[in-house]
Amino acid sequence: MTQQKKYRPLDAMIYPRFEGIRTFMRLPHETNLTEVDFAIVGVPFDTGATFRVGARFGPEGIRNNSLLLRPYHPTHAVNIFTWLSAVDYGDLPITPGYLAESHAQIEAGATAVFDADVTPIFLGGDHSISLPLLRAAYKKYGPLALIHFDAHSDLWPGYFGGKDTHGTPFARAVEAGLIDTSRSSQIGLRGPVYDEADMTLSIDAGFHVVTGPQLHAQGIPKTVEQVLERVGLGPVYLSFDIDFVDPAFAPGTGTPEVGGFSGADCLQLLRGLVGVDFVAYDLVEVLPAYDPAQVTALLAANLVYEFLALTAVQKRKSGK
Amino acid sequence: MTQQKKYRPLDAMIYPRFEGIRTFMRLPHETNLTEVDFAIVGVPFDTGATFRVGARFGPEGIRNNSLLLRPYHPTHAVNIFTWLSAVDYGDLPITPGYLAESHAQIEAGATAVFDADVTPIFLGGDHSISLPLLRAAYKKYGPLALIHFDAHSDLWPGYFGGKDTHGTPFARAVEAGLIDTSRSSQIGLRGPVYDEADMTLSIDAGFHVVTGPQLHAQGIPKTVEQVLERVGLGPVYLSFDIDFVDPAFAPGTGTPEVGGFSGADCLQLLRGLVGVDFVAYDLVEVLPAYDPAQVTALLAANLVYEFLALTAVQKRKSGK
Amino acid sequence: MTQQKKYRPLDAMIYPRFEGIRTFMRLPHETNLTEVDFAIVGVPFDTGATFRVGARFGPEGIRNNSLLLRPYHPTHAVNIFTWLSAVDYGDLPITPGYLAESHAQIEAGATAVFDADVTPIFLGGDHSISLPLLRAAYKKYGPLALIHFDAHSDLWPGYFGGKDTHGTPFARAVEAGLIDTSRSSQIGLRGPVYDEADMTLSIDAGFHVVTGPQLHAQGIPKTVEQVLERVGLGPVYLSFDIDFVDPAFAPGTGTPEVGGFSGADCLQLLRGLVGVDFVAYDLVEVLPAYDPAQVTALLAANLVYEFLALTAVQKRKSGK
Amino acid sequence: MTQQKKYRPLDAMIYPRFEGIRTFMRLPHETNLTEVDFAIVGVPFDTGATFRVGARFGPEGIRNNSLLLRPYHPTHAVNIFTWLSAVDYGDLPITPGYLAESHAQIEAGATAVFDADVTPIFLGGDHSISLPLLRAAYKKYGPLALIHFDAHSDLWPGYFGGKDTHGTPFARAVEAGLIDTSRSSQIGLRGPVYDEADMTLSIDAGFHVVTGPQLHAQGIPKTVEQVLERVGLGPVYLSFDIDFVDPAFAPGTGTPEVGGFSGADCLQLLRGLVGVDFVAYDLVEVLPAYDPAQVTALLAANLVYEFLALTAVQKRKSGK
Amino acid sequence: MTQQKKYRPLDAMIYPRFEGIRTFMRLPHETNLTEVDFAIVGVPFDTGATFRVGARFGPEGIRNNSLLLRPYHPTHAVNIFTWLSAVDYGDLPITPGYLAESHAQIEAGATAVFDADVTPIFLGGDHSISLPLLRAAYKKYGPLALIHFDAHSDLWPGYFGGKDTHGTPFARAVEAGLIDTSRSSQIGLRGPVYDEADMTLSIDAGFHVVTGPQLHAQGIPKTVEQVLERVGLGPVYLSFDIDFVDPAFAPGTGTPEVGGFSGADCLQLLRGLVGVDFVAYDLVEVLPAYDPAQVTALLAANLVYEFLALTAVQKRKSGK
Amino acid sequence: MTQQKKYRPLDAMIYPRFEGIRTFMRLPHETNLTEVDFAIVGVPFDTGATFRVGARFGPEGIRNNSLLLRPYHPTHAVNIFTWLSAVDYGDLPITPGYLAESHAQIEAGATAVFDADVTPIFLGGDHSISLPLLRAAYKKYGPLALIHFDAHSDLWPGYFGGKDTHGTPFARAVEAGLIDTSRSSQIGLRGPVYDEADMTLSIDAGFHVVTGPQLHAQGIPKTVEQVLERVGLGPVYLSFDIDFVDPAFAPGTGTPEVGGFSGADCLQLLRGLVGVDFVAYDLVEVLPAYDPAQVTALLAANLVYEFLALTAVQKRKSGK
Repeated sequence: MTQQKKYRPLDAMIYPRFEGIRTFMRLPHETNLTEVDFAIVGVPFDTGATFRVGARFGPEGIRNNSLLLRPYHPTHAVNIFTWLSAVDYGDLPITPGYLAESHAQIEAGATAVFDADVTPIFLGGDHSISLPLLRAAYKKYGPLALIHFDAHSDLWPGYFGGKDTHGTPFARAVEAGLIDTSRSSQIGLRGPVYDEADMTLSIDAGFHVVTGPQLHAQGIPKTVEQVLERVGLGPVYLSFDIDFVDPAFAPGTGTPEVGGFSGADCLQLLRGLVGVDFVAYDLVEVLPAYDPAQVTALLAANLVYEFLALTAVQKRKSGK
Repeated sequence: MTQQKKYRPLDAMIYPRFEGIRTFMRLPHETNLTEVDFAIVGVPFDTGATFRVGARFGPEGIRNNSLLLRPYHPTHAVNIFTWLSAVDYGDLPITPGYLAESHAQIEAGATAVFDADVTPIFLGGDHSISLPLLRAAYKKYGPLALIHFDAHSDLWPGYFGGKDTHGTPFARAVEAGLIDTSRSSQIGLRGPVYDEADMTLSIDAGFHVVTGPQLHAQGIPKTVEQVLERVGLGPVYLSFDIDFVDPAFAPGTGTPEVGGFSGADCLQLLRGLVGVDFVAYDLVEVLPAYDPAQVTALLAANLVYEFLALTAVQKRKSGK
Repeated sequence: MTQQKKYRPLDAMIYPRFEGIRTFMRLPHETNLTEVDFAIVGVPFDTGATFRVGARFGPEGIRNNSLLLRPYHPTHAVNIFTWLSAVDYGDLPITPGYLAESHAQIEAGATAVFDADVTPIFLGGDHSISLPLLRAAYKKYGPLALIHFDAHSDLWPGYFGGKDTHGTPFARAVEAGLIDTSRSSQIGLRGPVYDEADMTLSIDAGFHVVTGPQLHAQGIPKTVEQVLERVGLGPVYLSFDIDFVDPAFAPGTGTPEVGGFSGADCLQLLRGLVGVDFVAYDLVEVLPAYDPAQVTALLAANLVYEFLALTAVQKRKSGK
Repeated sequence: MTQQKKYRPLDAMIYPRFEGIRTFMRLPHETNLTEVDFAIVGVPFDTGATFRVGARFGPEGIRNNSLLLRPYHPTHAVNIFTWLSAVDYGDLPITPGYLAESHAQIEAGATAVFDADVTPIFLGGDHSISLPLLRAAYKKYGPLALIHFDAHSDLWPGYFGGKDTHGTPFARAVEAGLIDTSRSSQIGLRGPVYDEADMTLSIDAGFHVVTGPQLHAQGIPKTVEQVLERVGLGPVYLSFDIDFVDPAFAPGTGTPEVGGFSGADCLQLLRGLVGVDFVAYDLVEVLPAYDPAQVTALLAANLVYEFLALTAVQKRKSGK
Repeated sequence: MTQQKKYRPLDAMIYPRFEGIRTFMRLPHETNLTEVDFAIVGVPFDTGATFRVGARFGPEGIRNNSLLLRPYHPTHAVNIFTWLSAVDYGDLPITPGYLAESHAQIEAGATAVFDADVTPIFLGGDHSISLPLLRAAYKKYGPLALIHFDAHSDLWPGYFGGKDTHGTPFARAVEAGLIDTSRSSQIGLRGPVYDEADMTLSIDAGFHVVTGPQLHAQGIPKTVEQVLERVGLGPVYLSFDIDFVDPAFAPGTGTPEVGGFSGADCLQLLRGLVGVDFVAYDLVEVLPAYDPAQVTALLAANLVYEFLALTAVQKRKSGK
Repeated sequence: MTQQKKYRPLDAMIYPRFEGIRTFMRLPHETNLTEVDFAIVGVPFDTGATFRVGARFGPEGIRNNSLLLRPYHPTHAVNIFTWLSAVDYGDLPITPGYLAESHAQIEAGATAVFDADVTPIFLGGDHSISLPLLRAAYKKYGPLALIHFDAHSDLWPGYFGGKDTHGTPFARAVEAGLIDTSRSSQIGLRGPVYDEADMTLSIDAGFHVVTGPQLHAQGIPKTVEQVLERVGLGPVYLSFDIDFVDPAFAPGTGTPEVGGFSGADCLQLLRGLVGVDFVAYDLVEVLPAYDPAQVTALLAANLVYEFLALTAVQKRKSGK
């Protein structure tokens, strides 16, 4: 057990859930990370997007749709704020339109968070942000296992003459040795590609792959088992591109792919990952301007909540 | 068999389906309940809502989206209007902003309907309306079994210092003995709660509970079987909160919870409830302002249609 | 001239305008009012609404659409934060569904702000909030002049058997002597009413009235002149119901009336009110759920900005 | 003065304005026209549309947005229901996809209304309906003056090899002698046309024309004067195509034209037409599927209200 | 293997996917069909619609949402443009509002395409277009097997006194001997109907039927097997009404039916149809005005892509 | 007079206006510029945007909303295609996310158009594209006069440490001598700025300025006169940022400013510019994702049409 944690959400018995400044779950907005276990960190950078754009408003959309989240997670039977002191750190500074500069800013900003011994959830932003985030994580943890939910492998060598975009972060990360692919999985890949060679990028890089059709065919329990077996011990980075989800459940994203997964599928997958040593999470590619019923941002907020719960369970287990 | 019933929908071979005043299914709008078996009754009260609000336009949304419904139900092989004379009764008077006064008005209005020996479907409005509706039903039938589809138990003691809201109707109803919980089930509960104690409210009150994750795991046939076994003989009140459904299928609701159920799941569940002695139904928490593609109201109208069909089948069986 | 003020918005040269927690203009969220001249205060109460409802999300909508506002006001040639230390105070606690309780909470919350010698802008919420806000203001300033922009007089005796709603605040305020109607104006009234008697409510109460058609006919400069002449010296409360504006410019409101005014009209009207001794402002009836293009909330944020500028100009003039 | 009229709207002091079956202004839905002065008649036919389509849902949209209309018209100082017994007649039967058949049905349906000595307001539907409506009116009144607000003259000889569409009704009506063009005006014409010859269609047919740019230039009072002078005595048919209005105020229409007029302009124009002997009105081309903020339907409902008021004023003047 | 095909999409390495004129997949717009294997052909006719209307913008919506489609299909392991020279033929001329004339135009237009030995995918438009398309196909191929995905059988004798609409095409086609029903299947039928007789229309006409509930119950693999067994050898026409899909996945359609199928279900069904001798496809009833998140058009574009892939696989197999 | 021009729109008497591939006005898509007078050129680059982003879909939105435009302009009494052979050139290649590279591509692409002696209308994209477009124009024409409609001067030295964005193009252009500011005007500037120095940027650079409030005060005729007097003879570049327009008329833009101008104002302004020697036009900052009713793109398409008409009138006058 543990004493009262320093930071927790606004009290819903005094301030109804539609009240208050829109931080994630109405947590305190705090940039001093003392006595903080966990931080929500916005990274509203979307210059890496190659089709629909607007993920810079992803953190706003996710925060606005996180108001209904309550502290106790029934499936894990854990009250998150019994185990975690959590804050909303705000957004990292970036320079819209300038990828290299922004990636440097993101790496610097994330490094400060890791240096404070805080577990971060980064809210994208487009998927290109995972590269500087992995660079920052690497400085603290060395090579990390990656558990990657996505419709796309994001391992392309580069677009338009080699340029980095949201389709390339893991190509760069693998090249730089940031990822231990022998412990890593990519889940949900689907949709048409440019040519046959694109199909072997993940395998060539050393990932375990469960494509979208394979996941539909083999089911979630077997997939969770494979991922857990693969990941073993050691630090893990979870990257969740919302286009893993079917467009009916998550229309508000940059490169939607039909034939995806439901919200319930996502919850079941994530709830299976108990015991993994997650040191950082990102959730990317939420585009509120394409989300008229706000279901994408609502689902994203709930997935972030699952990340919080996974870490709370880790904490409970470790007795800290 | 039976002779021609008095009230039935507008003839679609003369008036195309997009024509006519927007009553439910284009039934006659009639407040005289003589020779009526079944009535659609709007209860556009939403002052009990604690988050998103606007269910006062729920009856309008459901009526507008009921135009495509036709008389013959293929699965039950029943023509509804062979067995039921049905009308749209309009809306019960309420006083927006005044919960206690409105609940008294709703109870009075519903009592008049029950007194006319009519089976009503009440269109909410927020879930707080189930309390005065159960009070009215109790006066005619005594304690009723409740079959309750919802993401939330709505058994909370009270918010903001004990106040009644849309999260409390069944707490009050159980306290007042309106519900025979020994015959009752709650189905679909899910999502984070405030603390551990919230998890036992339903069990403590005596309900059979199938949580959302349990329903996903055990499937619909087994769940239907459990509910049927539980409910036994005697009068039953069915309460359907549209947030039972997943936000992809029903975004237009006040407190949406991800990880829910599909429209097809709802149909399969309801079609299994043949033989139950339903004496009243409500369908609540449809918010058209959050339903840009109108799929929520369309699904709600179809669920109301399933209620009609269940009662038609009952009638056919009883030979009346 | 003046030294550096304590509180000002986030620096847009470091944090691009789409970044950061959504306070108004990205001002610091601060509930300690020391060294504060001006505070944005959310009052997300909408239980008083008699038609469309959802103004509880008005403060969120206005804050989200205030990001583009910059410190220097060209027409008044004033940098707001040279003269004002301003914060976002967050939202006052209220109890949704309970008008009397909430009005007491609002009065208490507003009293604390006035007691701190801070000029507040209250973001509604429905128009019923003006009553408790005027009660709080009265305790500090005594009877205030009211400058009231609205399509409706909100002077109705009461609905549904005398109940208070968003159509009655100024009836109650006049009865209680909170308003000095001899210095007060109502501007923009229009639209059909219940009967002839409704037409004389404003005059009978002692207000100067410029109806919507009169304002179209006589123009803005003459109207400003009348209002200024009327208001004279002494403290003034400005209440702005967004339905003063035409539905093309402000669709997101509860009881829209066609034939209204443009955004440019609003700016010209407000910019004319230099020299008035404003002690409080409210801006009410913004409903984001009916504002698909967000133009209502954007305009509302700009009107709030005009209020800030008017007070900055007052400060500059007084040399403080 | 007059005794109590038979039909009037639902009482808003008992049934709040969001309650009740969606007839126009919540008037009784009645197809027996005894003791009726005035009837709202839906004509949801849109097979004549040549671009965007969906005006079959126009009557629904207008009815849904008429709830806020109250009985007393301040500018005319008239309580409509003191002078008029009014009902919502529902919709005329039509056959979607079949123009000739539908026009015959519309003519027959409208004839029955005229035969009952009732003044109708027809809610379109596309503008092709004006042709059968004029045929029906002609049978009762002989040639009528037409006051026609529209961005287009709708005098085209025919599209696609001579076919009738919503661009041709007045060509056919003039050819058949239904319109006395010497007393008629077309107001608001604008936008690009196919060639120079299109520019003289109106003049050649004998209409007085005030183009859109001319109306902007000469202003409303002078235009009203011209129309009144032109129309003289005798029966008049008013046809209002909502695309007269600017797309900012009325986006929900089939062939929108920029550079149009505001809602306030419409009110001022219509309020000027006191004393004209209107025997029928139509309001056409409202397409709710293109009206996300519902401002088009709201404005349309208010224009219908102005029609009601004009006839009430006529009645008052005639002392009946 | 095969040499370079003449027509293929714009190069995405030079023109990013959001660039270029909106043809399907950014294929060349070409009406000369020399050296063309496959053509996308718009048929924007919607006068046959009996409820919501607007499928005339279906081809626009599908083209706009086809930009992300890439040449290589992973499941079939085929690069489409290695095997097919494909173009966007544009739209066939039609006469809106005139069903008989338009059907003649459509038949003539389609005949020209079939005469050029091109495999067409027709983009509707409402489902009435399948009748003239089948007439054109029949002239080349004689009676065809039909594989028909739809919520409705579209076998009704006629509406409104026998008129043809989008609910009647296959009744007419069967009567005319255009379809070899002994090889044909209808899949996904569901929803309420007018009366019992409607239930036997498909069986009476000789189709194999898998209703919606049957498909949910027996699963996709068994259904594919039945369809394949049924269809045998010989030419096949595939007709896909987007309302086969559940409204959560495809809200943008004219007569949506709840309880339908997911995007993933559609992909699995279509991918199972390898080896069928498809000579033409249509995809109908996409209504962009009811598709605020554009998920319907996106799914439709992907289904069209599956059609392309099926034909590419056929080509590869035949070695041509 | 002149003989038949080579390129003109699709014939609307054969292909109804909702048919055909979505080029601008359904002009031929042609990249060979022989016998072309006028070209529509998309420049879907939006990496320069500092707030809302998505103008890369601006050309799509404008093209989709140009279908209703017809050849004859009534005010100028000119049939555009009597005088101009016009095509839709498609989009210039750019590299999303890479400003410098893209600007080089845009300059190269535009240079090819100017070299072909074609008058281009460039469809943005964000306003940063005006810089490379002016560079290309300068190579052909030397320094150009600029007539610039905008809410912002876009003369800022740079954001975020000097970076180029959509707020800086004219700063760079003036520095490089591309603009003859002595003949140039900026019209419509308004809204808050960072500080006092921002207010003199335009004057310091040598522009004639008519701010938004000045334009409201002095009216359009006087403003046109000033601009004409200022511009004199010699080549002129017209740059139109859609945020010149009020958000009610143009919500779909990146940095909307309230208090702007109507569609009718725009038409009147542009129609006054007869006789100016325009050599190129751009229309920028249309963001379809923020334009739910599509009024922004519709207005933009009409403004482009005014540009076409101005050049047709020039041609007619020059007798070529």
